[in-house]
Parts: sequence; structure tokens; C-alpha cells
Amino acid sequence: MTASPAQSLAQDIAPAQPSTFPLDQWYVAALAWELTDQPIGRTLLNHSVVLFRTANGKVAALEDRCCHRALPLSNGTLEAGGLRCGYHGLLFDEAGKCVEIPGQDKIPGKAKVAAFHVVEKDQIVWIWFGSPEHPAPLCEPPAYAVHSNGQYLFDGSVYHYDAPYQLIHDNLMDLSHLGYVHLRTIGGNASIHMNARMTVESEGDVVRVVRHMPGSVPPPTYLAAYPFKDTVDRWQEIEFHVSHLRIWTGATDAGTESLDDPARGGFHMRGFHGVTPETETTSHYFWTIATNPQSNHQAIKAKVVEQTVMTFDEDKVVIEAQYKNMCKLGNGPMIDIHVDVGANRARRIIERLRNAGR
Amino acid sequence: MTASPAQSLAQDIAPAQPSTFPLDQWYVAALAWELTDQPIGRTLLNHSVVLFRTANGKVAALEDRCCHRALPLSNGTLEAGGLRCGYHGLLFDEAGKCVEIPGQDKIPGKAKVAAFHVVEKDQIVWIWFGSPEHPAPLCEPPAYAVHSNGQYLFDGSVYHYDAPYQLIHDNLMDLSHLGYVHLRTIGGNASIHMNARMTVESEGDVVRVVRHMPGSVPPPTYLAAYPFKDTVDRWQEIEFHVSHLRIWTGATDAGTESLDDPARGGFHMRGFHGVTPETETTSHYFWTIATNPQSNHQAIKAKVVEQTVMTFDEDKVVIEAQYKNMCKLGNGPMIDIHVDVGANRARRIIERLRNAGR
Amino acid sequence: MTASPAQSLAQDIAPAQPSTFPLDQWYVAALAWELTDQPIGRTLLNHSVVLFRTANGKVAALEDRCCHRALPLSNGTLEAGGLRCGYHGLLFDEAGKCVEIPGQDKIPGKAKVAAFHVVEKDQIVWIWFGSPEHPAPLCEPPAYAVHSNGQYLFDGSVYHYDAPYQLIHDNLMDLSHLGYVHLRTIGGNASIHMNARMTVESEGDVVRVVRHMPGSVPPPTYLAAYPFKDTVDRWQEIEFHVSHLRIWTGATDAGTESLDDPARGGFHMRGFHGVTPETETTSHYFWTIATNPQSNHQAIKAKVVEQTVMTFDEDKVVIEAQYKNMCKLGNGPMIDIHVDVGANRARRIIERLRNAGR
Repeated sequence: MTASPAQSLAQDIAPAQPSTFPLDQWYVAALAWELTDQPIGRTLLNHSVVLFRTANGKVAALEDRCCHRALPLSNGTLEAGGLRCGYHGLLFDEAGKCVEIPGQDKIPGKAKVAAFHVVEKDQIVWIWFGSPEHPAPLCEPPAYAVHSNGQYLFDGSVYHYDAPYQLIHDNLMDLSHLGYVHLRTIGGNASIHMNARMTVESEGDVVRVVRHMPGSVPPPTYLAAYPFKDTVDRWQEIEFHVSHLRIWTGATDAGTESLDDPARGGFHMRGFHGVTPETETTSHYFWTIATNPQSNHQAIKAKVVEQTVMTFDEDKVVIEAQYKNMCKLGNGPMIDIHVDVGANRARRIIERLRNAGR
Repeated sequence: MTASPAQSLAQDIAPAQPSTFPLDQWYVAALAWELTDQPIGRTLLNHSVVLFRTANGKVAALEDRCCHRALPLSNGTLEAGGLRCGYHGLLFDEAGKCVEIPGQDKIPGKAKVAAFHVVEKDQIVWIWFGSPEHPAPLCEPPAYAVHSNGQYLFDGSVYHYDAPYQLIHDNLMDLSHLGYVHLRTIGGNASIHMNARMTVESEGDVVRVVRHMPGSVPPPTYLAAYPFKDTVDRWQEIEFHVSHLRIWTGATDAGTESLDDPARGGFHMRGFHGVTPETETTSHYFWTIATNPQSNHQAIKAKVVEQTVMTFDEDKVVIEAQYKNMCKLGNGPMIDIHVDVGANRARRIIERLRNAGR
Repeated sequence: MTASPAQSLAQDIAPAQPSTFPLDQWYVAALAWELTDQPIGRTLLNHSVVLFRTANGKVAALEDRCCHRALPLSNGTLEAGGLRCGYHGLLFDEAGKCVEIPGQDKIPGKAKVAAFHVVEKDQIVWIWFGSPEHPAPLCEPPAYAVHSNGQYLFDGSVYHYDAPYQLIHDNLMDLSHLGYVHLRTIGGNASIHMNARMTVESEGDVVRVVRHMPGSVPPPTYLAAYPFKDTVDRWQEIEFHVSHLRIWTGATDAGTESLDDPARGGFHMRGFHGVTPETETTSHYFWTIATNPQSNHQAIKAKVVEQTVMTFDEDKVVIEAQYKNMCKLGNGPMIDIHVDVGANRARRIIERLRNAGR
């Protein structure tokens, strides 16, 4: 089979660069409720992917480029038989095989697009690209019981970041910034944040930061969601995984319970944070926030989500300004301060895995 | 004459790249009615051109850069004596000669800008850049009687494309996409389009595709413009020339006339499509649509033009998405299908002529 | 001290380019009234600078990058003790020293950012970057008595230009363009401008252009601001300095006074024009216009400022179009005409100083 003359343009187009991401990981590709009756085009780790749900409800992920004339398949339409291209109508099944070329009986064997491993689990759609050595998944995708065990109400969204994923990690691993960036919502007293009792532990590629702030003044979001009596004992438990973080924060009335007891009561916010590189310099941030309203359940859940949106909007402004400045000013030194321990461990894990893939 | 100190900035500016277009061709520079009392600046085949109509109505085309301080002459104003620069008032005639420098008696011989060969014919303004071997036109510009013989009402417009001209050729050479892209207007049944009887012929640098679709359901535009009784016999005749295409489509009541008879009646749409590269990666698309209303002439013409605008807007979305995807995904293989025969022949002609110019 | 893992991203970011500006100069960084209760981030000669006013009213200029995680300090807030970063709360004094790290007792010696020499004088904030040989100022910043001596009412603003500073110099050094670009305001008869009596003198790095236009028809701005009887004798005195220009224009009733007498009466417009490179290809243009109303002082001043805004908006359109064209068309020849003498001298000064710094 000779090259199509249609490829003649390609000689004018620069080749794609190789990627340098930690590769043997499950990354978040979508939140389950994003996939309805339209395909979604999304670049993930430099791969152009079209995500969709088949007629029987299964999630699927294909290369977002028709093998005929390169139109994004995400411009197409979903049918019982699969995903149909919006230009000349080629139909692809969930495995990427072209199953119909309108007006043509024979379908060439090369008429296919790449399919990616994708699994829906606990309301999260995970994707595995893998390294050249491990194109097939080495493990099951992570579980996230908070979305499934019925103890919480939750919602979430997807943000696009003009910044690399590592800067989002930094932000989430060091919650001392709450007192400067998030005074309108979950901030509270800056000094108490900065002087929190902090422990940092790591095991394999997981880093765990625990911060306790007894005797804090409850911040606006907390007061809006829970009938605190006066000051509170706050906790922040951050668990870093290469492709996502789990952050469990909350507070009890001061002095009433042990912050070390996972069964403690009070107000809870459980955050899921999928940080998926789009490219080396841009990111997708998939987040959900789950809480445990004591009354007015839907209203309080809505309030917590609304305040979380405000909070994450503030983070986005800071992180994108930070990255823009790094690009403008280039490679300058950075000093570390006491709160950077957790973030720095996460950075070292990412760097080790990035270098492993080179 | 020494270089002006004003040129000192130029050392910081990258030199322009050489072009790789088919060069010994007449290209469309404008639709005649675009040129009124204002100059128009337009990049054509990487040449920066200012187009204007002189006081006696003749079209002219000059390099769009004042020889004094490089302001685009298209920022200037038209006067009886020519085109006056909007910065310091130098006046240029249609041959590019500076004929006045305000406040200065002597006009240096170097005070001039390049002039291009330009001809207005059948409501189209054609321009010849030529190869280094053929700076002067090798032939007359093409005729287009549809604009002049009084048999049709027509109108048209200019679109800018963020895509190379070859992708517009592909789109126009293969009208099988009508059933997927243009259902709102000229589409109709996808299967009938895909199974049309098609012949492809070429002679020299012209490719001719003829498609017959007897027994079709008339699409919305056809029904809006002509009192068809029931199903129709549709034809599509596409004639590719290196710089433009002529597409004659239409339909008669099914079974009433021969689709091979050029004098057939029924509903006619005659499209002129000037596809002029702006740069290697962007294009101008000059189009007109002519039709033969049987009654309510102006209203039906307006309707056909309105539906054509909708149709070409749909094409623009597809083609720009296609090119963006090609740029993002780089040089991947493309499989050919049955409807690509005509487009592929056109591509080979373009590639041969591009390579001839290197 | 080892490098922070947070710097690992930097290896992906291109290093900043060396600058080629005339360096041993005081440049305008701000107009005094811009600095109130918020820090201002501004790139000046490729330096990213945060400008602010301390609690005691003094102006200060620091590197606009926190030494911790590179957030622009201009995203921070002003406090009695200095400028506090908006991410983790590090506090910097006007010398760039970090004087507080929240939650940490010891402040490392490396916790500091660069400070720049900055002086407020006659309502202008001047900054000195200097060459490697002269990091400290070699002289006092320029005086501008017009802003301080009480003889004039004035106002001004800052424009951002997508064009190099040299093109703004050209524009200001050659006011013959008034008759083509500024007919709505300060233009008047093009031919009189082009035939003005012009003298050009230079001394060191200063160029002085004087243009006299006796018997001119007063242009709209002049008529709006002063009760001229009939025709006027106009003058334009332009003084070029490497980092700024002073332009004194005006008119008296024709035949009533000597244009060579600095104490002449009539209508005066005194323009200050700080032209500070942002980068090699973009500029800040700080301007003020001062005038001497004979009555209705505030209303006439406001009118003159309003018309000046219109005038400078027109210049911006021309200059940005000119530069865009230069970039598009590359290194083409430029012919000089009679009015270019002053601008060309200024260009030669800039080129000499630019080359001195390489």
C-alpha cells in the first residue's frame, strides 16, 4: 500500500516531541458523568484521545484522528455501532476498528485507530498509556470509595491549567498557603496554618502529609456548613500518588475528639484531585469534593461545592501566574522553607519516574 | 546610496521564507466588487499586496509596504493621482512609482514599490506572480462566463481559512461529504451520495469529476428554491484547476431529463471557488454561487446564497479542525477510500508543480 | 545549600536572552501617580520589576519573583513592613531582603530578591539598570521642571506598544507626519508641515530639531484651546534624549512674536515622552502633556489631554502597523526623505550605544 497523496502536506508539519511523563500509571481521563451522548476530545499526556460511552454504557478511548483524513473523531457522532466520523462517515467500534466505510464494500485492514486502556471505577474514568515496556496495565486502577460508599454527598469538575502538573502537586501538598490565598473560604488564621503540627511520611511512590491545627478559628466555609460552637481542632491529611491526591480535611469542636482518630466526627471535606498532564506545560485538573452534611443535605453540599470552586479558582490564578513568571524569568534559584517538605518529596518521585522514561 | 539608519532594526527580524506554491498561475486576488474607494491589503502566496482601483476604474496591485518607512500602503488613501501613504504622504501611481514626496522636489529613482500583474475579468480580479523564469503572464486569465452571460443571478464572498489550500481542494473535489457535513442544506441521503455513479477524468492540470445520483430525495436548499414534484436526479460536475474550481450541481425531476445533457433544465447551482494560498498554512477562499430562479428571482437567489453560506461555514469548521489535528498529531498515515480518486489526482498535480518550483 | 527539587521544572524552560539596550541610562519606570496602595508589575528592558511605594511614601523596585516559588511579588500585598508574597506570605523590605517567613524562625541569607535603583523626581519614577560595568547610577536622573514649576496644568498616561522603542523615536523626531496622521487634532495643512523651516543640531547623545511654520491655519486642538484671531505662527521644538523626548509645540497669532524667543506667549503644549523598552520588540510609552490655559483652566486642560489621547492613539495604530509589516516583510531597503534627518541621528546614537553593550 503506497502513501496517500493526501499525506503530502505532512512533510511541512513538525514531528511531535517525545513525552517525559511518569508513564506506568493510571491517570484520570474524565469524571464518569462527563460521558453522555457526545464524544469528548481531550489531550492526555500528549496523546490526542476521544472518550465516549458505547451504546451499552461502557467507556472507550480511541486516538482522536480518523485514519482517512485526520479529522478529530470527537467532531463525530455516537451511534449504536460506535463512533462515526463527521467528514466522510467512517464508523469505528470501541476497539478502534473501522467497521463501515459508506459506499465501499471492502474495509482495508489498515482502516483502524489506536485504542487505549480505559476503566470506569468509583465514578472516575482512568486511562493507562504505559511505557513502551508496559503498554498493558500492570495493576488495577485505584479505588475511591468516597464516591461509592454512600457516606458523602459530592460533586466536582474539570479545570484546564496553563501550567505543568508539578505546580499543582506543589500547591496541594502544601496547604499552608490557605491563610494567604483562600481567606474568603477555607483560609482562616495564616499564622495557625504556618505553625501547624506537621508530619511527613513516604512509602514507595506515596507521600503522606498530616497537619493538625488545634484551637483554630473556623473559616467561612466551615461555618457555613457546620454548627461549630466556637474554636475548632482542624486536620489536613494529604496523600500524594503520582497521578492523583486524596485530601481529607475537616474540624471538630475544639477539645472534643482526637484528631488522630479516623472515626472522628465534625465537619468533613474529602477531596479527590486527579492531576493529569495535558502536555509538559499544561494540565487537566479533575476534582471532586465530598462532605457530610448534618442537615439541609443538598443545600450544604451545594454550598461546600460552591466555596470549593471559589477556592480552586484562586489557586488557578496563583499557579498560572507562577508558571508564567517562571517562563518569563527562566531558571532562577528557589529557596525552600519549612512547609515544602512534602511537596519536595513528591517532586523527587516525579523526577525519578520522568528520568526512568527517557 | 547608503542604507538608512532606519534599517538598523531589520537585523533583528528573521528573513522571509521562500515559497513553495505552484507559481505560473493566475490566482484570484479579489472579487471585483470588493474594490471600491478604499485600498485592500491582502497577503497572497506570501506576497504582501495592496489592491486598489485607480481613478479611472482600473485595478492595480502593489507591494503593500511604503519604500520610505515600511508602513502598509493599505493604511493609506486613494486619490486621483494614485495611492498616498498614511504616514508621510508619499504618493504612488499604479505602476508603483513614487510620484510625489511632500516637501521635497527631487524624487529618488529608488522611490518605488513592486507592482504585480493584475487583470479584472468576469467580475474576478486575477493576479500573476509567476516563477523567476516567468515573471510575466504566460497566458490570459481564465474566463468565467457565468458571471457575465446574464443567465444567472449570483453573489459571493471571501473566507479566510486557517488551513492550507490543499485541504480546501480535497473538500471540494469529494462531495460525498455532503451527507455527513451538510444535512441542513444541500446534504440529503448519505448513502446515495456515497454510492453515486462517479467518473474521474484528467487532462493536463485539469481534473474533472462527474457524479450522478438518480432518484434522490431533494435536500432542503433544493426544495426551498425549486418546485420539485418528488424525487430528483442530481448531478455534480466538479472541474479542478490549479488555482480554482468550477462546480456545477443541480437536479431535475426524476426521470424527466438526461443528466448528461448540458442543456438540462431544473434547478442549477454553479459555484466558482478561487482557492488562493495566503501562506503555506493559511488560505483565502473566494466563492460565488449562481443560480437560475424560476420566479421570485431575488428572493430565491438570496435564499440560495444564504444556504450556501451555511454550507461553507460548515466546511470551514471541518477543514480547520482537520488541519489543527494534523498539526497536533504530525505525520501519520492516511488511508484512501473510493471517493478520494479525484482529490488525489488534484494533490498529485499540486505536488508536481510545487516541486517544480523548488 | 543544594538546589530545591522545585527547580527541576526549570530545565524545561528556555534561558532568557541577553539584552541589547543602551544600558547606562535612567529610564522611566512609572508616572508618580500610578504608585498608590497596590504593587505594579512591569517588564522594563527585559527585567521583570515590581514597583511599589513603601509605608513612608518612598518608591521601591524589586525583582518581580518571590525567591521561594517564583510567584510574581506584584500578585502580593503592601504592608507597613514591605511587600508580602501572595502565596506563602514571605515579606520583603524595599531593599529586597526577606524579613519574615511565616512559621519559620530562621531566615536564610539567600532569602532575598534583587532591588533596583529607583528615584522619584518631578512626578516621574526613574529606574537605572546600568551595564555590568556601571550597576550604580553615573548621574542624577533628569529633571523635568514642567511638572513642578506651577506654570502648567498637565496629565498623562502609559501606553503599551507592540513595536520596538526605535519606531516611537522615529515618530516623535519627525512631526511632518501630523498633516497625514493627525488631521482630527493637531494636524493642519500637510504641505505647511512638510515645508517647515527645520534645523537639526546634536550634541553628545542629545538631538534637537526645531521647526517653524509661520502663517499656518490653526488645527482643531489649537482652536479649541486658545482664542486665535486668524492664522498662526507655529513652532515645534523636539529634544531627543536616549530614554525620553521633550517636545515643546505651540503657536502665536501670526506676525505678533518671534518664534525664537523662549518667552513667547500664545498657546503652548509641552510634551514629555518616556520611551522605555519592555523587550526588544515591545515598549512602554509614558507621556504627559502640559498646557497653559488662559481661562476655563481645568476644562481646557482636559480638552488638550483628550485631543492628545486621540493623537497618540492614531500614532499607535500607525507604528504598530508599521512594525507588523516589517516583521512580515523582513529586511527590505528604506529610502530616506528630507524630514528624516533628526530621526536618523537619533537612530545612530541608539545603534552606537546598543553595540557598545554587546
